[in-house]
This record gives sequence, structure tokens and C-alpha cells, in this order.
Amino acid sequence: MKILVLGGDGFCGWPASLGLSQSGHEVVIVDNFSRRRIDEELGAQSLTPIVSSTERRKAWHETTGHRIRLAVMDIASQYDRLLALLREEKPQVIVHYAEQRSAPYSMKSPAHKRYTVNNNVNATHNVLCAIVESGLDIHLVHLGTMGVYGYGTAGMRIPEGYLGVKVDGDDGEVSEEILYPTHPGSIYHMTKVLDQDLFAYYAKNDALRITDLHQGIIWGTSTDETSLDERLINRFDYDGDYGTVLNRFLVQAAVGYPLTVHGVGGQTRAFIHIQDMVRCVRLAIENPPERGDRVKIFNQMTETHRVRDLAALVSSMTGAVVENVPDPRKEDAENELHVVNDAFLDLGLRPLTLSNHLLDEINRTAMKYRDRVDLSRIPARSLWTKDLKPGVPVAYRESTGR
Amino acid sequence: MKILVLGGDGFCGWPASLGLSQSGHEVVIVDNFSRRRIDEELGAQSLTPIVSSTERRKAWHETTGHRIRLAVMDIASQYDRLLALLREEKPQVIVHYAEQRSAPYSMKSPAHKRYTVNNNVNATHNVLCAIVESGLDIHLVHLGTMGVYGYGTAGMRIPEGYLGVKVDGDDGEVSEEILYPTHPGSIYHMTKVLDQDLFAYYAKNDALRITDLHQGIIWGTSTDETSLDERLINRFDYDGDYGTVLNRFLVQAAVGYPLTVHGVGGQTRAFIHIQDMVRCVRLAIENPPERGDRVKIFNQMTETHRVRDLAALVSSMTGAVVENVPDPRKEDAENELHVVNDAFLDLGLRPLTLSNHLLDEINRTAMKYRDRVDLSRIPARSLWTKDLKPGVPVAYRESTGR
Repeated sequence: MKILVLGGDGFCGWPASLGLSQSGHEVVIVDNFSRRRIDEELGAQSLTPIVSSTERRKAWHETTGHRIRLAVMDIASQYDRLLALLREEKPQVIVHYAEQRSAPYSMKSPAHKRYTVNNNVNATHNVLCAIVESGLDIHLVHLGTMGVYGYGTAGMRIPEGYLGVKVDGDDGEVSEEILYPTHPGSIYHMTKVLDQDLFAYYAKNDALRITDLHQGIIWGTSTDETSLDERLINRFDYDGDYGTVLNRFLVQAAVGYPLTVHGVGGQTRAFIHIQDMVRCVRLAIENPPERGDRVKIFNQMTETHRVRDLAALVSSMTGAVVENVPDPRKEDAENELHVVNDAFLDLGLRPLTLSNHLLDEINRTAMKYRDRVDLSRIPARSLWTKDLKPGVPVAYRESTGR
Repeated sequence: MKILVLGGDGFCGWPASLGLSQSGHEVVIVDNFSRRRIDEELGAQSLTPIVSSTERRKAWHETTGHRIRLAVMDIASQYDRLLALLREEKPQVIVHYAEQRSAPYSMKSPAHKRYTVNNNVNATHNVLCAIVESGLDIHLVHLGTMGVYGYGTAGMRIPEGYLGVKVDGDDGEVSEEILYPTHPGSIYHMTKVLDQDLFAYYAKNDALRITDLHQGIIWGTSTDETSLDERLINRFDYDGDYGTVLNRFLVQAAVGYPLTVHGVGGQTRAFIHIQDMVRCVRLAIENPPERGDRVKIFNQMTETHRVRDLAALVSSMTGAVVENVPDPRKEDAENELHVVNDAFLDLGLRPLTLSNHLLDEINRTAMKYRDRVDLSRIPARSLWTKDLKPGVPVAYRESTGR
């Protein structure tokens, strides 16, 4: 199939593009390189030395014989170019990763909040609008987040998108299935709730075929394909804005920085290895909804862990010290999380779960590139409200004056 | 209190501004005059001859001694000016009407869909973001729509925003109150769903005080205040995009155009007279939520009617012919609608219900200005999907070639 991967230069988009190309699909990456520009804005960089899109795609061709093409555009603001691309390429599938994806970045300032809302909503809406205007029967596969559900669900398992409820009616109780009520924990997460509303509308009014993948936190950085050549290496974020918790802990351990646990570390979150993300996207593409169906929602996660348990695990592997720091986020100190993920398992996914073997591999990557780490970028400094405090360890608080 | 009325030059914003000013509040209108520009775009105009904002406000001062000030800006794109205005004026209340409010206009073309989403989401988000950044404790009162609920609710009454549901948990059934599941019927209605998500987030993360008014279809055009002087007259839309059903029928009757009922006219909708809208906004302002409360939601409607019954009523009053035309909207041919509106009744609202007396008054306005009507602007030509047909009567279909 011909597949456009929007945001195909990013952390998930790049390994997904390689995986789909390797499976024999024709892949065109659409990207505005906003993630590379944000690195410059934040004075941060990927732990791993990523090369340019042109070099990456050249390396892919040299290594495998497959070609991945590139269209540079900002889909949130260049609607006409996006529409022209659809008309020219006539893809069967669009995979949509083209959104600002960091919760802390989305909370850094009013300008960052406004950028995230404006960019993410217009990007998604432009894609939907362009599919309708093109008249093509394109299956849209979108990267959502487990964070749309919220984490206050003790005593029940989070279903895959739709919740069965009973409501008192005039003639007794009525049973309905509704979109799971949302409780997003940041502006970023909220934009994925807005996306969900857009999808529900376009699936109903225009009979678009849409799959929404509510993804857990990614761990790991390399996949079968990114490991084929050094130039195919994927980005690895360890900074306080874009670094996700388990990857960040492994880098902190590699450079002798305390493992910073926010609050008491009672946050339970859903996780998935980056290799499984690639498999799931392929499974979603191969199992599209029919026209007229409601949005197909998968919980793209394979296990749940509590943050303090992850810190303890990395500490026991590496000898790193764990330090409890202030939580810069407005969130519950402790939560339970039980999630249904039968849909991908039923399609044949055999999950890679947290293991010393895989953690070792990430740890080796962290050790290999430890000289590229800027310690000042590690702590989480983006505050959910003004009265909260950044997650900086005591030993580093004085040196930075914050 | 000092009140900013965003969109205070529009159909609801203008009479609300006058009503609040007359009650002794200090009113500052914030508007970019987009509604007047859309008239130019559509080649349409208000049935009633509305004067400029400057003349209107001058007339208000001459008539009552009250002053209403004006700040011209586009709140969706001029965030810095909006923030500066909040810091300068320090209002206690913001009433937010500053959104594109026509469902058919939002469906006219991809450009209109995109304008409506971009304008409405960024307008609302900028207001929320600016309130937080200002640090002021401002009560935000927003004009929402009954249309967020959808109309597929036979067998139960639509509550005011929140629905009690029972869910199966691991240890038996759990009762929860959730935001009513939304089923918006157009891009415009969907933007009000997105607004609702933004409000829920900002009420939770930033403890903003927010009231959302889920309003029915307005009928009537004049209020106690707009009737004081000819220059204070409110706009009266009869065109296929902005004309709401009952007002439109009365104009159609006045000019001898068939009353165009979409489909079989089985659509049941919620209504409220424009004078009651003004009263409700004042009641909402005087009864704000506390900081930390969830969003306070009122159903701002006073009665429900089926479209074909309204056509029959106007026909019996005026002798106008009723004609069933194609329905350009994707909607159920027939629906029931039962709505709870206790909150405003409990606060003392005594509704103006549909009466020959009030219809007569509107009919006199329609007759007075009938020479200003452009027949070609009457039918609804904006199609929800390409396969639908415009709502043009047979006698007019050939003459326009559509």
C-alpha cells in the first residue's frame, strides 16, 4: 500500500516509517522538522546523534534497497499543499504523528500552550478536511494517547475507547456505549481529546475510516530497522520536556545523576516498547474499519508500572541513587491503572515486556553516548501551575539558582 | 461589575451588552466585526438596518446616559492585545460570544470548516490562557449550544451538562457523573464540544470559574433595550446560513416565499426568546461558580418545538404556503427532545413562551423591512455532504439553475 507518514521524521514516525517500508509498503514522509527546531529552541539534543532526513533516507536505500520519499510541509498551516499532495500521491493510508507530543513542553508558557493547541487541532482538522475534499477513500491511523482517559480509575479496567454505561430513562434503565469520558492531564493530552472529537464527527458525517491508537509511554529507542546502520539511529530524548520516564532514568543512571522521582512516584502508567509500537501500527493498517463504522480505538500499550518501581529497578541494575523531588505536574500522588488491550493481542501481537535484556540494551546506548548529555537539561522545569516547583535534585538546586 | 463582552457587536452580543449596561454594569465590547464582514462575503444583509458600532454606542449614551466602550481586536489571533486589555481593564466577568455561530456557514466549503475550527478554538483557548496569565479572578460566561448534546435522546431528559451513569467495576456497579456524551451535528456544533473540553481542563488545572450556557435556537430580534431607539435596532438574519428557523419563517411569510421545511420537518429543537437570553446571561453572571468548582452548565432554553409545527403555526397566522424541500443537513428526519432547564427557573426566570402576541411583533418587523429582502439569499444551500441537495422550493429551483 502507499502510506503517507505525517511527522515521519520524529521519534515514533521514523521507526514506524522504516518498519512499514521494510514490510513492502511505499512510504512518503511528510514533515516540517518542527521537532528538530524545538531541540534548538530548548538548547537540547537527542542523546543519539541523528543525521539529516536526506542522509537517513539515503542510508535506508543503501542498506535495504527500499526508497522512502519526503515532502516538506507544515500540515497545520499549509492546507493547499497537503490537499495537492493527497491528490498527487493518492495514498491508501495516512499515519498521523504530526503533533506536538510533549506534555511538559505544552505547559511551559502561555505561548507553548497556544502553539500546542493551534498546531495539533489544525493539523488534525486539515488532514480530515483534505481527505474529504480529495474524495479519496483513505484510512487515517492516528497516534493518540492513554492520557485521554485520565488515571483516576481504581476499581475498573479502562476499555478500548468505548464504555458501556447504564442511564436512567423515562421508562427504566437504558444501556449505551459511549466514548470513554476524558480526563486529560495537560494541554498536550487535551489536544488528543479534541482530536478524538474531530474523529467522531468526521466518521459520522463523512463516513471516513479512522483508527485512533491510544498509546502508552514508549520505552526503548531502537528497532530491528533502526539498528541496521548507524545512520538510521532513532532519536533518544532525555531532557525534562521530551524525555519519557524509563528512558530518562537509564540516561540519568549512565551519567551519575540521581533518578528523579516526582513526588512519591506513585503514578502508575501504561508502557509499550518502541518495537511493539511499530508492530501495532502495521496491524492497525492491515485491519481497517469499514466506511460508516465508528472510530476504531485500540489501547496501544502492553503493561503498566508504577514510577517508583521503575526507579527501583533501574537503581538495582545500575547502582544509581533515587531521589524524590517536587512534582511539577498537577496530578494524583498515587493511582491504580488497569487497562484492556485485547484488540492487538487478538490480532497476534506478542508483547516485548520489561526485561533486563532490553533494559541492558538501552543502558548500553546511554553509556555509549553519555558524553553528549547536558546535565542542565535533565530536570523537569515546566510547571503545571505557578505555585508548583521544578523537579530538581537538592545537589543541583543551588548551582542553578532555581 | 466591569464586564467584557467578546463579540458584543453581534446578534446576541449586542442586546446582551445593552441589557447588562442597563442593569448598571460597566460594559466594554470587544469585537473584530467579523459578522459584518461575513455579510459582505455572502452578499447578504440584516433584514433590519443596523448602524455602525460607533453610532449604536452613541445612541445608547444619548438614550440612557450609560456608556459602552469598544475595543476592536481579533481575539483568535491577537493574543497579546487581549492580554493587555485584561491587564488594563481588570474585568470581573468576561462574556464570550466571539465565535462563528452558523452551522450552515461552517459547512459551506473546506475553507469555511477550517475557518470555523481555527477561529472558535483559538478564540476560546486564548481567552482561557489570557485569564490564567493575567492572574485575575475572572468569571468566564460562555455561549454554548444545545447542539452539543445531539438530538437522539428519546426516552430520557437531557440534564444540564452532567449525566449520572452506572458502570460495571471490578467490585460491582459504580455510579459516576460525567459530562453528557456529545453528538454534534455540524462543524460549528463540534467547535462548541471542543470548547467544553477546554473549559473542563482549565477549571480543573487552573481553578478558573467558568459558566457554559447551552443555548437553544433564538427567536425574536428585539429586547426592551434595543426597542428604545431606532439606532439601537438588533440584526435580524433571514438568509439560508444565518437565519434561524422561526425568524426565517416569519420573513418568508412577509415576502410571500414558501415556508421551506427541510425534509418532513420532524426535527424537534429547543428555543428561547432573545429577551430571555439577555435575562439568563445576567442571572449566570450574578450566580458564579466558586474557584475549584467544575464548569457550571445551564440549559439556556425554555421550550421545544417540532419544525413542521412551527411552519404550520406561521402559516395559520399569515396564510403563507408550506413547502417541504430537500434537507441539506445530515440529520435524523424525526427526533424527540426533552430537556431539563430547572437551573434558570430556580433562579427566577419567568420564560416568554411562543405566543401570537410576540410572533405578531416579529411579523410587524418583517413586514416593515420586507423591501430589504433578497429572495435569492433565503434557501439553505450549504450541504453537509456532497450527495445532499439544497433546500430550494420547486418554483425557485429552475430560475436559479440549482
